[in-house]
Amino acid sequence: LRGKINTHASTLARRLASIGLTIEWEQTLGDELQPLADAISRASESFDVVIVTGGLGPTFDDLSREAAARATGRKLVLSEALLRRLVKKFRNAGFPMPPANRRQAWLVEGARPIENLVGTAPGQWYEQGNKVLILLPGPPSELNPMLEKFVLPMLAKKFPARPSAEAHLHFVGVPESVVDQRVRPLILRAQKISGAEFRFTILAHLGLVDFDTFVSHARLPRAKQALASLVREIAKRMGKRMYGMNEGYPLEKVVAEHFKSKKTTLSLAESCTGGLLSAQLTAIPGSSKFFLGGVVSYSNDVKAGALGVPKTLLAKHGAVSPEVARSMAENIRRLTRSTWGLSLTGIAGPAGGTPKKPVGLVYLGLSGARGSRAIEFRFSGSRDTIRQRAVIASLDLLRRL
Amino acid sequence: LRGKINTHASTLARRLASIGLTIEWEQTLGDELQPLADAISRASESFDVVIVTGGLGPTFDDLSREAAARATGRKLVLSEALLRRLVKKFRNAGFPMPPANRRQAWLVEGARPIENLVGTAPGQWYEQGNKVLILLPGPPSELNPMLEKFVLPMLAKKFPARPSAEAHLHFVGVPESVVDQRVRPLILRAQKISGAEFRFTILAHLGLVDFDTFVSHARLPRAKQALASLVREIAKRMGKRMYGMNEGYPLEKVVAEHFKSKKTTLSLAESCTGGLLSAQLTAIPGSSKFFLGGVVSYSNDVKAGALGVPKTLLAKHGAVSPEVARSMAENIRRLTRSTWGLSLTGIAGPAGGTPKKPVGLVYLGLSGARGSRAIEFRFSGSRDTIRQRAVIASLDLLRRL
Repeated sequence: LRGKINTHASTLARRLASIGLTIEWEQTLGDELQPLADAISRASESFDVVIVTGGLGPTFDDLSREAAARATGRKLVLSEALLRRLVKKFRNAGFPMPPANRRQAWLVEGARPIENLVGTAPGQWYEQGNKVLILLPGPPSELNPMLEKFVLPMLAKKFPARPSAEAHLHFVGVPESVVDQRVRPLILRAQKISGAEFRFTILAHLGLVDFDTFVSHARLPRAKQALASLVREIAKRMGKRMYGMNEGYPLEKVVAEHFKSKKTTLSLAESCTGGLLSAQLTAIPGSSKFFLGGVVSYSNDVKAGALGVPKTLLAKHGAVSPEVARSMAENIRRLTRSTWGLSLTGIAGPAGGTPKKPVGLVYLGLSGARGSRAIEFRFSGSRDTIRQRAVIASLDLLRRL
Repeated sequence: LRGKINTHASTLARRLASIGLTIEWEQTLGDELQPLADAISRASESFDVVIVTGGLGPTFDDLSREAAARATGRKLVLSEALLRRLVKKFRNAGFPMPPANRRQAWLVEGARPIENLVGTAPGQWYEQGNKVLILLPGPPSELNPMLEKFVLPMLAKKFPARPSAEAHLHFVGVPESVVDQRVRPLILRAQKISGAEFRFTILAHLGLVDFDTFVSHARLPRAKQALASLVREIAKRMGKRMYGMNEGYPLEKVVAEHFKSKKTTLSLAESCTGGLLSAQLTAIPGSSKFFLGGVVSYSNDVKAGALGVPKTLLAKHGAVSPEVARSMAENIRRLTRSTWGLSLTGIAGPAGGTPKKPVGLVYLGLSGARGSRAIEFRFSGSRDTIRQRAVIASLDLLRRL
């Protein structure tokens, strides 16, 4: 309500769909007790499961505990076990626990706490008859693990869906609308042939498209069969644009698996992306098995100095050129003795563009045992978008090696 | 509700705030007529302005027009003028108008159409007494211009806001609850003294705390005065923990301004963060003015080779040690001839920890004209969290130079 983007609705919708549950209603409201309590009451009347996110912190405007108690007509009770765990968390961090944090040990009477392995706010799971009220903390880094480890398994047990199967397909370099256009007829046909029920979601982000589909049928083998044949058809229709079929399997992980399985190594020379690709690859646990490191050659001095790009090359062609991209890739490969060297140089903007070399012009350089080459891209969008598109193009290139 | 991110709520909240209006309630629901009509009715009872986004297209599941008519008890009437404009739009695009698009010429009786310069769906502005119901199309590229050109000016005229002022304060290295504890009494006192009305929110993320406050008063100078004196008191109370007072002014921008104003330069040697800090700094336009580049020394070979950390040092103390942190910082500074060299080395996990060097142990090395030093941190959380906390600690260190 104050301008920040709500990612919870999207996360919850996608993850709940994986156990056959659909979100019918989402609402966001301010930090005022009575409206919060009213919203929880009203939602509990109409729906089987109500999930409240946020408002479990220690401060005055964290009111979800109180609102849940008021909506359910229960008291809040102090959990001594939770309190001990809180005090210990603070002691481990080297602080005495501020008195305000005591509030985080209050539970709706009869609720089960959900452990928070990242932050201080425990979640709560409260059942009343066939209905469930769930309180989760606001920070995604705290909410997501609690969702995966506790909430989804518990909900799946309490609300067993019809036997179902799911597939998560990932595409790169193709617009969302084109995926939709090509995939929808295949789904409608599969539905008719198999008699199974299909649901799907499409999510696009900077040239990556995630397609999730869930298939249910009275008999599990039929659901799995229907799904498998649909996936085969989609894969055939989309070709190389489809880069993976696992939930939570980002493009960089596909690249990482590729390098690890081939026992090849990679090093990077990044200019316009300033370390973004390195950061993305090293976000993967175990990336040290194939990623040796690199140089962020943001200034021309670093390109020439630490990286060893000939000054004459820089002077003749400019830093943003196929020649310099190739030299950067060759030099980082030689310097780190990696199997492959990849470089990025371009103009991310907003300033620095010229008619001949406009903002969005990016060269990728790739150097391997058999030589080197450069590829030209022209991206549009903001500085951020251009940098991220350059990273995705690099990952796509590495994937296709 | 199907996994896509809702950006409308964020856009509308920010743009409405600019004319002094606050969103009190946001909800998302599916494409079913009666629930949509009920939601519009209920919202119209409680609020002065109701904005409906989406559902103005030509297809069967575009139901906002019908829902608005049902909720307001008015008929839908065909606007001949709108129909002519629609037919013309299609003709200009070289298509005959599909019959389905005729629906887009239907207006709630008494509503004023809002011209759509981008797409085919006109918006609608419907007044009933002192209340306004606004229908806008879903695609942001259509919604945004209509919001700026028509909706915001019309709303500002109809609901002139009380004069108000706002402040956005940012803190680092202090828990959310401590900010609350210290700031709340100051606000309560300021409220009493000035007679102005204060609203505020606190939001924490990975050790950063954002504090937003809005102050209104019948007279603008009084609101501004009250706010200025509050901000002065908070700044005094929080000291160096407060790093900025601008909306959308992240920590890395504070660091960038610091370096640019001092005309000093920076280079980085990143190990456990793998380029994340470089990526964050180079996200800022114009960062090339102070950031020269760096080395991502992910493997020990790169630490020794490209970066020149003595192999004996690595063997004796290990890569994650104050000695290696200092050497990394000194070497990157010498290599790039920067004013300051900063290094990060640590164990981000999930594997690689030992009892003596557990996951979360991170050393920052800092090298300048007067020598070098290393600082030890022990972070908790996931691999991602540890890396991000290390980046924030580095930015905080650079800010304090």
